[in-house]
Amino acid sequence: MNLSHLKERAHAEDVGAAMYRLISQLYPICRSITGEGVRHTLDILKRHIPLSINEVPTGTKVFDWVIPREWNISQAFLKNPQGERIVDFKNHNLHVVNYSVPVRKKMTLEELRPHLHTLPEHPAWIPYRTSYYEENWGFCLSHNQYMELADGEYEVCIDSSLVPGSLSYGECLVKGETEDEILISTHICHPSLCNDNLSGIALSTFLATIMSTTQHKFTYRFLFIPGTIGSITWLALNEHRLANIKHGLVAACFGDPGRMTYKKSRSGDADIDRAVQLALKDAGADHEVEEFFPYGYDERQYCSPGINLPMGCLMRTPHGRYAAYHTSADNLDLVRPESLLDSFVTYLSIFHILESNTTYASQNPKCEPQLGSRGLYSQIGGDADRGAKQMAMLWVLNMADGTHSLVDIAERAGMRFDLIKTAADMLAEHDLLKALN
Amino acid sequence: MNLSHLKERAHAEDVGAAMYRLISQLYPICRSITGEGVRHTLDILKRHIPLSINEVPTGTKVFDWVIPREWNISQAFLKNPQGERIVDFKNHNLHVVNYSVPVRKKMTLEELRPHLHTLPEHPAWIPYRTSYYEENWGFCLSHNQYMELADGEYEVCIDSSLVPGSLSYGECLVKGETEDEILISTHICHPSLCNDNLSGIALSTFLATIMSTTQHKFTYRFLFIPGTIGSITWLALNEHRLANIKHGLVAACFGDPGRMTYKKSRSGDADIDRAVQLALKDAGADHEVEEFFPYGYDERQYCSPGINLPMGCLMRTPHGRYAAYHTSADNLDLVRPESLLDSFVTYLSIFHILESNTTYASQNPKCEPQLGSRGLYSQIGGDADRGAKQMAMLWVLNMADGTHSLVDIAERAGMRFDLIKTAADMLAEHDLLKALN
Amino acid sequence: MNLSHLKERAHAEDVGAAMYRLISQLYPICRSITGEGVRHTLDILKRHIPLSINEVPTGTKVFDWVIPREWNISQAFLKNPQGERIVDFKNHNLHVVNYSVPVRKKMTLEELRPHLHTLPEHPAWIPYRTSYYEENWGFCLSHNQYMELADGEYEVCIDSSLVPGSLSYGECLVKGETEDEILISTHICHPSLCNDNLSGIALSTFLATIMSTTQHKFTYRFLFIPGTIGSITWLALNEHRLANIKHGLVAACFGDPGRMTYKKSRSGDADIDRAVQLALKDAGADHEVEEFFPYGYDERQYCSPGINLPMGCLMRTPHGRYAAYHTSADNLDLVRPESLLDSFVTYLSIFHILESNTTYASQNPKCEPQLGSRGLYSQIGGDADRGAKQMAMLWVLNMADGTHSLVDIAERAGMRFDLIKTAADMLAEHDLLKALN
Repeated sequence: MNLSHLKERAHAEDVGAAMYRLISQLYPICRSITGEGVRHTLDILKRHIPLSINEVPTGTKVFDWVIPREWNISQAFLKNPQGERIVDFKNHNLHVVNYSVPVRKKMTLEELRPHLHTLPEHPAWIPYRTSYYEENWGFCLSHNQYMELADGEYEVCIDSSLVPGSLSYGECLVKGETEDEILISTHICHPSLCNDNLSGIALSTFLATIMSTTQHKFTYRFLFIPGTIGSITWLALNEHRLANIKHGLVAACFGDPGRMTYKKSRSGDADIDRAVQLALKDAGADHEVEEFFPYGYDERQYCSPGINLPMGCLMRTPHGRYAAYHTSADNLDLVRPESLLDSFVTYLSIFHILESNTTYASQNPKCEPQLGSRGLYSQIGGDADRGAKQMAMLWVLNMADGTHSLVDIAERAGMRFDLIKTAADMLAEHDLLKALN
Repeated sequence: MNLSHLKERAHAEDVGAAMYRLISQLYPICRSITGEGVRHTLDILKRHIPLSINEVPTGTKVFDWVIPREWNISQAFLKNPQGERIVDFKNHNLHVVNYSVPVRKKMTLEELRPHLHTLPEHPAWIPYRTSYYEENWGFCLSHNQYMELADGEYEVCIDSSLVPGSLSYGECLVKGETEDEILISTHICHPSLCNDNLSGIALSTFLATIMSTTQHKFTYRFLFIPGTIGSITWLALNEHRLANIKHGLVAACFGDPGRMTYKKSRSGDADIDRAVQLALKDAGADHEVEEFFPYGYDERQYCSPGINLPMGCLMRTPHGRYAAYHTSADNLDLVRPESLLDSFVTYLSIFHILESNTTYASQNPKCEPQLGSRGLYSQIGGDADRGAKQMAMLWVLNMADGTHSLVDIAERAGMRFDLIKTAADMLAEHDLLKALN
Repeated sequence: MNLSHLKERAHAEDVGAAMYRLISQLYPICRSITGEGVRHTLDILKRHIPLSINEVPTGTKVFDWVIPREWNISQAFLKNPQGERIVDFKNHNLHVVNYSVPVRKKMTLEELRPHLHTLPEHPAWIPYRTSYYEENWGFCLSHNQYMELADGEYEVCIDSSLVPGSLSYGECLVKGETEDEILISTHICHPSLCNDNLSGIALSTFLATIMSTTQHKFTYRFLFIPGTIGSITWLALNEHRLANIKHGLVAACFGDPGRMTYKKSRSGDADIDRAVQLALKDAGADHEVEEFFPYGYDERQYCSPGINLPMGCLMRTPHGRYAAYHTSADNLDLVRPESLLDSFVTYLSIFHILESNTTYASQNPKCEPQLGSRGLYSQIGGDADRGAKQMAMLWVLNMADGTHSLVDIAERAGMRFDLIKTAADMLAEHDLLKALN
């Protein structure tokens, strides 16, 4: 893959705006961990990328878990004593606790209160709540509205169904020259929440698109799965594939204006950890790197001890660290095309580093080879980077003993990966290096 | 062992006060590296714990050393030219240089001066001096008194004996479920000095007492030995036991109000080093950790290259770093029941960590097991620690791959050991973990 | 070798002044990578040390390189339109671009300009320029003079020759008790430049002199070679010797008043790296240590991946970091006898550490041996260092388990190497230590 061409294309095609449009299209759909919302979402993605949609029946055992019943919802509302629909699912998907069991009854405000969820610290926002693994129901509303509720009899209606069906997930395989895989996993279970995680869905979709049209060594597998149960399901059904997965990232929260945050894999020094850190450093923008901890997104499953894939999690502002997280304020105003584009380009840079991370053996390991007589000094040109390019060549030659990858060399030299890679390419062209992998 | 029960007992039984009483009882006795003072001391300890008292005859070869003659003393005094007993061993054990050879003669002040020891910087205190391995005699007195000595003929009397006998030491073995041992070694050779080391003697005695009444995996061996020659003797006579010793601590200086100080073992990263550091960190109080150096107490012998036991030294203020060290000011005013109790509880916490430092293998290593369906989320309760307890469970599950002990997990998670241990216990109860050791 | 005796000798014989005299003698000679200047220089060195002078014919293949033609020059000048010799090689060797091809022609100032080199930022200085591997010619002059050049026809004369001949280098082998070698490599290709590198030539010469008159374990090999092509040549012709080279240093830039700078070997933790750092720390003067990078002097070749010798580079102010570097200001005013002497003594200290870096096995590894009964406590005397000397003995005894060298012990103890070495000597004298190497 040619990173600079891909970057140019991304800018030329305005991928940030395209991602934003996809997010806008998916925003109104009510998703959950199962049900029509997920299917509808995957159908839309299928217009962009060759997506296989998989259905796993309710009751299927996946490791310690069981595929739950399928949840669907047609309508839901709360009527006040005056018979007015004061909360209506039609107005916002977040108004209903996701996975609520069906309910239709009248009750006093006092009886109703335990089923009402608000955010006192953000009184205008609707919170996002779920109750997947405990049978329950509820409504979410703004605290302002909640404070105005008067005593009396309320009518509650949630027309949902929880019946045997299936869990749906999408999978897009972009074949490379080898069967070694890079896995990108994104959760699709959240309803109308933009950053978490329509941004991840859009990013994965457009990464799959661009990688389909370029040559690369790795095979890229993009998973569009409901959180937790989705990754567990995929892992349970695909254990035989895990040995092929060489690197991976859990992708979420890419649209907010915050800096990039990388959470390392369980081992902390996998190639993916080093490639991401190099890409972030080379990009020159403020960013944060944090150690693995067994909480967060699906890295919890991918990095469980019996799976232990070399996968980190790359985001902008992490879950729980921005006010709008899991509220109605995670909307189309929070995510920005330029943040989406920047996230997209960062991912491309990481793929580029992983694709290019060759280990070379110098073909002239005894003393330096003559660079001048091969025209290599003049080839590096006379620009401002000339000195750096020459140092990059010398570093590559010095470290190319068959045990150091280009990432090793870039780290040790403290130089940008692209300089090291360019130097290696020039040296290889002159038969001074032999690629070992 | 149940740490919280033991801590409650320690407080309920006011172990600090009990230790202080034992120190008060032992304070008047004139101990040395051999002789009746040691025997008398061990006899008193025997009233508290099942102590075997060992006698090793003078002349016995112990590695590079030889058991010295036994030293006893009946009286000693210094008479001024007026015939007044101005320094009398009866008044304070420290007045005589410990291990002084017998002497009875008259001499001028000038001849006497080389045998008189004072502390000019603390003119009211009597220093503590010994001359074990060089034949000599002397008196220690306050500098104030020394300054008033007038010229004239002095009468010197030290009625001591240095004759073949034996070196005495005490040993208390508290059997556990296994033959793996934790060794606690305390020196008993100091005369009327409270912190150094009646505090260590009292601590070891009460630790042996409480460990005798609780279940535990390790066998605890408490040594009450004269410094240097005692540890060398025990090691020389017990080489066949060394393989059983898994962890150890040299115990001294526990009664002063200073913070705890841990001096690491020779390797610096033995389990004992990590357990002590974890216990001190979790206790939340100010403390100090220092690297091993081949000076100090009997860790010099236990950590000699041919012995190399995983033993550190846990104290409050270390030898030589408090003004009263090796002076008459190291008396019953320096040591405090509350410091003794705090030291005692710290040792129990360390024992608890070592006892509980299990390595588990998750029985559900592939992805997270369902905690909710097992009632584990509700079991952790709704208190302020709820989040921490849940993280502890997730950390244990994530790290329980059969290669990480609970200490490893607590260190990596940066969490209190008790949280990690409680989480592991809950998970093990639900058959989610299998103990490997 | 007895370091303090050697240091005393160095001061007594005023080696700094002697080195300065040698530099003064060599300063007028026009050296290059080949030719009579180098031969003349080596002939002078031969009066001080037994130097073998090697000639390698033009055209000889040395790894990826070929020995170039021999360059000699008889005269060179530039005449202005008035026929005045305004630049004359007779006045300063730096006036001609080193390795200039012969030229004799008339040309306009405009045509001449690309062949004229100046230093605008230091208008009074003449720069040093070379064109070894590209056929070219040129003159170097002060920028002041350059600014005064008037239009018109200039006469250019460089009477140089580039013909088959040989590359000359010198080699001085100072045999030790073993065949294990310490290699000191110094470049001799620079014309009238004092710090870079007549200082290195003088240092190596006087080190060879003093090491010839003292006993030592290592064999010392001093190479006097043209930069780059010289080290490549030696390595190509001496591959069979490389296994004997245990430590090495590239020696350059010793006369300036700056602090010492050590650039580590490629591995970064070779014995030479640790010995140099210890010597610099123990000397107590400000100094700098930097990581290896594949640029600079001949460490580029010695540390190439297929050679990979444990060699660092010890200098005062490194190349390119002082204003006078590669200019006529690198003259007899820049270098100072006292800096030369300090550099000399530092090298001796490093040799001393390498010579003395024994690994011992304690003959009394079980517990401490009795030091008092062997008179070792009294042997260390009563001076201010008494406590440190005793600690040094205890450290040596504790670490002497057959796996730690004296450098290991000095590093771990954080003590001066000479204290550790003295302690080890005393203990070895009393048969408490056995040397393993």
